Amino acid sequence: MDAARPQRKSRPATLVRRREILDAAVDIFGAKGFAGGTLVDIAAQVGMTHAGILHHFGSKDQLLLEVLRYRDESDVADLEERHIPDGMPLFRHLVRTAIANAQRAGIVQAFVVLSAESVTDDHPAQAYFTARYEQLRGEVAHAFTAVCAERGITAPDTIEDAAASILAVMDGLQVQWLLAPERVDLARATEFAIEAIVSSVLGPQPSPLAE
Amino acid sequence: MDAARPQRKSRPATLVRRREILDAAVDIFGAKGFAGGTLVDIAAQVGMTHAGILHHFGSKDQLLLEVLRYRDESDVADLEERHIPDGMPLFRHLVRTAIANAQRAGIVQAFVVLSAESVTDDHPAQAYFTARYEQLRGEVAHAFTAVCAERGITAPDTIEDAAASILAVMDGLQVQWLLAPERVDLARATEFAIEAIVSSVLGPQPSPLAE
Repeated sequence: MDAARPQRKSRPATLVRRREILDAAVDIFGAKGFAGGTLVDIAAQVGMTHAGILHHFGSKDQLLLEVLRYRDESDVADLEERHIPDGMPLFRHLVRTAIANAQRAGIVQAFVVLSAESVTDDHPAQAYFTARYEQLRGEVAHAFTAVCAERGITAPDTIEDAAASILAVMDGLQVQWLLAPERVDLARATEFAIEAIVSSVLGPQPSPLAE
Repeated sequence: MDAARPQRKSRPATLVRRREILDAAVDIFGAKGFAGGTLVDIAAQVGMTHAGILHHFGSKDQLLLEVLRYRDESDVADLEERHIPDGMPLFRHLVRTAIANAQRAGIVQAFVVLSAESVTDDHPAQAYFTARYEQLRGEVAHAFTAVCAERGITAPDTIEDAAASILAVMDGLQVQWLLAPERVDLARATEFAIEAIVSSVLGPQPSPLAE
């Protein structure tokens, strides 16, 4: 949910080529992980040489970081003016994200593998994921504070744990869903869990996510 | 939380050696992942040759599966007679597991990386993790059913989603905690989330996890 970065100026053909490589990298990192997937695999998928990939992205580490930014941009592309909502609309946005994710297993798989791999020693995306979770926890905690203020409730001291838990349950359900899509309903389970956690913070009330 | 398997009969010295290799494999797979960690890395850590590891475990895939079973056994080792609790004691057991996990980052790191890596194509632990989550979801759903019966509540149709969500939030919080242990309190956040989800299933009541 990072704000969009300005695109660097490039010729349209170069931009198309870069995007093809990014799509192939999502596929390969999802299928094999970052440690297991190689630039040769990615090059083969787009009919280029290994050197051609390096020409566009400089290094495998750099390509990984561009893949993650590319995914962030696709996350916010459907939001009006790329504006991240606050308050209760943020929780509804997270439920809609899970509904959208259930239709794009490839990018979810890449994200599941890369985020978990990022805890390994000296992983090139460790700083990215550490900062990303920190930012997301802050945004979710802020939404809780805003909802409490709107409703005249004193913000409880569970908000930080609740923010971490909402992101955690979204991530963890993705793993179970990828392993057994016929056994885990990603969208429905995510909505259930977010509603349970939001209710726990706000106190019992009927269906807090209802518009 | 698999039941303990009978140990194969081996000489004590062989068992000690196998255990040293398993401990080293937990370290290496946690530090580098399964795709990134090699038998040579593991052999170096225990002062053996690569062939020596193969003598004990047959293949890298087989070693991975033994590491996962080894972890399952350590999970239940502290339970009386290795009996998995049911009903509300299961939820308290899961909270205690998170408290214990906060003291063993190494094995948590290995588990986070291996479970996420298992969604990659043809990963040797894919069947293991698929079956493990299926079994755990069943155990947690059964505990919900037992608690509802005890309290004379009609079991709601959210039990399956709640079971998946409890396992998911435990996994997802581990990733955030490994990346930022000073920012995420693994034990406290896990207890908050389990209590929120249990309350959502049972209906509002003060602190359902309290003994």
